[in-house]
Amino acid sequence: LAQKTVVKPFLEVLSGRRQQVPPVWMMRQAGRYLPEYRELRAKAGGFLDLCFTPEYAAEVTLQPIRRFNFDAAIIFSDILVIPYALGRSVRFEAGEGPRLDPLNTPEQVAALARHADFGKLEPVYEALRRVKRELAPEIALIGFCGAPWTVATYMVAGQGTPDQAPARMMAYRHPEAFAEIIDVLVENSIQYLLGQLKAGADALQIFDTWAGVLPPREFQRWSIEPAKRIVAGVRAQAPDAKIIGFPRGAGALLPAYVEATGVDAVSIDWAAEPSLIRERVQNRVAVQGNLDPLALIAGGAALDRAVDDVLAHFAQGRLIFNLGHGIQPETPIAHVEQMLQRVRAYKT
Amino acid sequence: LAQKTVVKPFLEVLSGRRQQVPPVWMMRQAGRYLPEYRELRAKAGGFLDLCFTPEYAAEVTLQPIRRFNFDAAIIFSDILVIPYALGRSVRFEAGEGPRLDPLNTPEQVAALARHADFGKLEPVYEALRRVKRELAPEIALIGFCGAPWTVATYMVAGQGTPDQAPARMMAYRHPEAFAEIIDVLVENSIQYLLGQLKAGADALQIFDTWAGVLPPREFQRWSIEPAKRIVAGVRAQAPDAKIIGFPRGAGALLPAYVEATGVDAVSIDWAAEPSLIRERVQNRVAVQGNLDPLALIAGGAALDRAVDDVLAHFAQGRLIFNLGHGIQPETPIAHVEQMLQRVRAYKT
Repeated sequence: LAQKTVVKPFLEVLSGRRQQVPPVWMMRQAGRYLPEYRELRAKAGGFLDLCFTPEYAAEVTLQPIRRFNFDAAIIFSDILVIPYALGRSVRFEAGEGPRLDPLNTPEQVAALARHADFGKLEPVYEALRRVKRELAPEIALIGFCGAPWTVATYMVAGQGTPDQAPARMMAYRHPEAFAEIIDVLVENSIQYLLGQLKAGADALQIFDTWAGVLPPREFQRWSIEPAKRIVAGVRAQAPDAKIIGFPRGAGALLPAYVEATGVDAVSIDWAAEPSLIRERVQNRVAVQGNLDPLALIAGGAALDRAVDDVLAHFAQGRLIFNLGHGIQPETPIAHVEQMLQRVRAYKT
Repeated sequence: LAQKTVVKPFLEVLSGRRQQVPPVWMMRQAGRYLPEYRELRAKAGGFLDLCFTPEYAAEVTLQPIRRFNFDAAIIFSDILVIPYALGRSVRFEAGEGPRLDPLNTPEQVAALARHADFGKLEPVYEALRRVKRELAPEIALIGFCGAPWTVATYMVAGQGTPDQAPARMMAYRHPEAFAEIIDVLVENSIQYLLGQLKAGADALQIFDTWAGVLPPREFQRWSIEPAKRIVAGVRAQAPDAKIIGFPRGAGALLPAYVEATGVDAVSIDWAAEPSLIRERVQNRVAVQGNLDPLALIAGGAALDRAVDDVLAHFAQGRLIFNLGHGIQPETPIAHVEQMLQRVRAYKT
């Protein structure tokens, strides 16, 4: 009963209640900039071994919380676990991005499994349960998935590319086959997110890292519509689920995304234009972001100024302070501390 | 005297007079998708030899005009000719992007030449004069330069990178030194553009290919301010100069760019949000763009739909039909013809 009265500032913001000091966490906060992460990573073997060993995944999820007392922990995993559970080959080789077997013809799509083997994702759920047990009650736990468009870009090309041309091309040339990939990802992402909620996630984030390469018509079809279906599908079984969308690079298409999908918040990248965000996004939902990760590497006066800009632009409204993209491995830990002190000293 | 009465539809649009059928050209229209270009390219030797041999540069500039009768020719050259004329080492190796000697410390910047050797750029002016003589009077001739920010990203890193992190980092860490690079580029770009006008260019385009990676404060300082100074510097000596800006990926920062720089038009990328462009950009200046180059590769119904979208979004106002980025080498020539037929058949 006592626990019920503990407030999670992160969830408060998602529920419509601005906090005087914005809650703060960082995308990729469990990562290579931390020596304790690098140590465990070396012990675990491959990257997927780290994701799929609950003891390890829980531990790296908690490491940044212990060090920085962030307002949210995000489960350590990867957006490509869904293709993996669909039986696609997914490899992470050192120093390179992910590698998959390409999926770029209607024939290959016809042979794609429709249902993920969720048994393969049980270690993620177990890691969530472990983290949940250890997390202080005021700290939120975030589950996540990749957005169908972004996951599909890797499935089609077999790797990341500068502007994900292979998937865009397939969507032009074989829109029906491409829509089938998206449909499979929508349905399985809904089940996966519900599984994460059941395992203890307090909120969910949908990462659409490559939304920004889409023209408006394609953005509507491949980023907005799938996100809308996922939000509706999750809420059909978990009506109070809190969901954050991150259509990175959406620019002036962001208001349409917010309006159509029904997300509770959007994460915004570092290049977002502040007045559009304030007037047409933050007036509807909470905003999460958007410090330039390079300012965090630079430190000093440049970092202070960049932190102050984020606060000046968005802290009068509902803000979850975060980066505009993941923290980079070469970031000095002292700069994260500098950022946190400045955010936590914020007063309106 | 007779020639004075010939109207160039491209310049009409830049001068505030919408054309019923939008004039059309394509970024990188002189390029590898054309067999006649590939043939001459093979004969010329290196890429810079092609740029700096007036006979060849003029010929490849004219090739797409002969084939497609575009409304504008753009002089065949490269944005890195300014660093070249500043004495930096600039190489183009087959299958890779450009390579320069990196320039990333304040000490190196202190040693940077302040004045370009414009004798090195005389072949560009000569190519412009040759093209001008051969071009039909209703077709406009475009000169161009890279925007200081974009040129600086290559000078600092020595090459292209996914989000031009080295230059962004230098701007955070050594803003004074970085500002010196920008100042040198501003001053020399003004002289270079004036030289191109004198050699026959009817209009000028400033390519800021990497503007989209900048946060708002940095966008203001490194993209908007330098463009504004270039526009003012050119107009100080050529008051009627028509200038197009292309801050690619600027998103919702585009209205601020248009308002501050004083350009006559902006080129927009394929991901631009139409209503923002119509209401806050096209109400002030002409708009050039923005077909997705991948739709042009795809052809068929996808291309028709994409062409129709551009026309539906922007042809009611001042529009120069173009791509949202350069045409790609694998584009079938038949698809360019399909696009042109559709644009030229446009009726309001």
